[in-house]
Amino acid sequence: MIGLSSYAGVMESLMNSAEEQQPSSPLANSWSKIQESSKNQKPKCVGGFVLVHAGAGYHSESKAKEYKHVCKRACQRAVDRLKAGALAVEAVAAALVELEDSPFTNAGMGSNLNLSGEIECDASIMDGKSLHYGAVGAISGIKNPVLVANRLLSEAQKGKLSAGRIPPCFLVGRGAHDWAVSHGIPPCPSEKMASKFSLSAYKRNKRKMELAEKIDTGHNHTKKRRQSSENENGSGCLDTVGAVVIDLEGNVAAAVSSGGLAMKHPGRVGQAAHYGCGCWAENACSMNSHSTAVSTSGCGEHLIRTMLARECSAAMQSEDAHQALLEAMQNKFIMEFLWSHTTESMCVGYMSAQDSRAKTHISRLPPGTIPGQCLAIEGGVCRLMSVVE
Amino acid sequence: MIGLSSYAGVMESLMNSAEEQQPSSPLANSWSKIQESSKNQKPKCVGGFVLVHAGAGYHSESKAKEYKHVCKRACQRAVDRLKAGALAVEAVAAALVELEDSPFTNAGMGSNLNLSGEIECDASIMDGKSLHYGAVGAISGIKNPVLVANRLLSEAQKGKLSAGRIPPCFLVGRGAHDWAVSHGIPPCPSEKMASKFSLSAYKRNKRKMELAEKIDTGHNHTKKRRQSSENENGSGCLDTVGAVVIDLEGNVAAAVSSGGLAMKHPGRVGQAAHYGCGCWAENACSMNSHSTAVSTSGCGEHLIRTMLARECSAAMQSEDAHQALLEAMQNKFIMEFLWSHTTESMCVGYMSAQDSRAKTHISRLPPGTIPGQCLAIEGGVCRLMSVVE
Repeated sequence: MIGLSSYAGVMESLMNSAEEQQPSSPLANSWSKIQESSKNQKPKCVGGFVLVHAGAGYHSESKAKEYKHVCKRACQRAVDRLKAGALAVEAVAAALVELEDSPFTNAGMGSNLNLSGEIECDASIMDGKSLHYGAVGAISGIKNPVLVANRLLSEAQKGKLSAGRIPPCFLVGRGAHDWAVSHGIPPCPSEKMASKFSLSAYKRNKRKMELAEKIDTGHNHTKKRRQSSENENGSGCLDTVGAVVIDLEGNVAAAVSSGGLAMKHPGRVGQAAHYGCGCWAENACSMNSHSTAVSTSGCGEHLIRTMLARECSAAMQSEDAHQALLEAMQNKFIMEFLWSHTTESMCVGYMSAQDSRAKTHISRLPPGTIPGQCLAIEGGVCRLMSVVE
Repeated sequence: MIGLSSYAGVMESLMNSAEEQQPSSPLANSWSKIQESSKNQKPKCVGGFVLVHAGAGYHSESKAKEYKHVCKRACQRAVDRLKAGALAVEAVAAALVELEDSPFTNAGMGSNLNLSGEIECDASIMDGKSLHYGAVGAISGIKNPVLVANRLLSEAQKGKLSAGRIPPCFLVGRGAHDWAVSHGIPPCPSEKMASKFSLSAYKRNKRKMELAEKIDTGHNHTKKRRQSSENENGSGCLDTVGAVVIDLEGNVAAAVSSGGLAMKHPGRVGQAAHYGCGCWAENACSMNSHSTAVSTSGCGEHLIRTMLARECSAAMQSEDAHQALLEAMQNKFIMEFLWSHTTESMCVGYMSAQDSRAKTHISRLPPGTIPGQCLAIEGGVCRLMSVVE
């Protein structure tokens, strides 16, 4: 999971600064203190921030470099768009395209193969400004599933279809593919989407499955299933990718994309396409003092049941969680971001518009701990503007 | 939306009474008062309750009788199962099968046709005891989609598949169909699933669409779309069906099934298949003082965004909402149930195991009100056991 949270006060101030006006309305209690201490300083806008992840799972040391590279490129792509004036939702889609295009991530090109040896992808995107949402599930033959999700989101914002029909926000399977192609998104032959890595993983998994089923023969099958080690999947690479972005105007957006579990049943849809489970973005408003954006990664079935993205977003709204940070803020205008995982490792990258390059990091559980039984939480703060003059 | 809420105290008492024991643990504050006043009375268990709906939308007077009939049969089917000792989840599936089999409801047989003239169904089911969940989306050629959702739920409860694979909880499209057939659920030729009514509605809608698109030609299309009347869909019959059940042991379950919007894009999945949107069931536990079960109906895209089922379930947990009811309870052991809709009408049925027949009702908005701008809420209470001796 990755997430970011920024304060309504910061946002208001950012927008005021962009318009070179003084704040015109009273600010929230916790913020007004900070605001007051810096009211003679002119904050300078630095134009947004992006945080990406290349998936929770297991990242071998040998491939660490590749994961860091793709995270860097994804951050750069989003920041380039932000600097060109793009809104958060457009920048987050740009980051996802870069993550999907890498053959090393389990999203878009190089996705896990399903039980039938096919690639079926899930993706979703949410705009914190409009709260609009678009998602695709079990879609085949499309290089960038996030672009279909994004197109569903933007088409829905245009209003109703002919004869008062409501535009869809979630399409699956063949219907999703056909919709994408009819909206100008080019199809991609399925065989071009598999990578050397995903094909060899498929052959390895198939042998493993056949062996496991051979052992099962003659035993009580149900009992056998229950005895399967809880950690067997922990050693596989789950690798859902995602990103969260805050733009110059303080809008947030989140997106996620995944090839799903290796050897999944055809038609299986995981958390990456589930509303409230794969990603969540919500601008600050009268009901929420903070803008929050969350993108999750890991085993879909577990994430769906915990509705992780939305729960995290709600938790990030809680005043308690922010008290310590607020006190540490003093007169700086900052945003909190964090990532957490229970898998062996997770590769993240982040970059603000004032940075010359992205920072990347592979977070790992401490040696000797068991994935699924231990949680790593790391994060940082980012100055959204520098306090000058 | 339909929902039921019962008290942990009631449940505990029910179970104690079934086992003919005295309560062994201290009860919640609000409940202990009532418990105390009736501690010398032996409550008699009456074995469960079911509430069904045949969909929110528009129910013509001419078809009112049909809707009431199918609701009655669905209630009876669930109560028969409860009396035979079935758990809530099994009884709720039985009610749904009856609702799906009616050619008058937009679920299973007689579902709305999509843009290509095909039937694609969504369904989901949730067990309040285990919190397990199963769902199918855009599934074709299966007479009872709820049985596939239920089978996914029960297969997931058996634990992992061979080689440590996690069983799916949500399958869509062709993959969902193939999974169902491989698990012994017989396929049903698509042409047998359309009813005379759904076929003629398809032809009527197609003409309406072609006409609307002819008018659009030469105009600004985007602008036209936004101008479409908000009420155009209000006159169509949306008709997602659903049910909530509480069993003898106090377990709750909820399920929902839908053919989706008429003329939807192939592959479109609505709220009936979305976790937290179509249905929600949660037994009372240390964190929730009430058992709640909710099933929603209406336009999927709107319901997904409000995550209605789960929100209603949470609202029903709130102490405030129950204070008035608790005070009215005195020494009776009751359960609250309700339905609400913003569409023109909604047909519901309900029955407890002590009733000889189901009660049905078509709830309508007051004359002159505009669907979508007015909300009807109705409901009642049910004695879960009679206080005798």
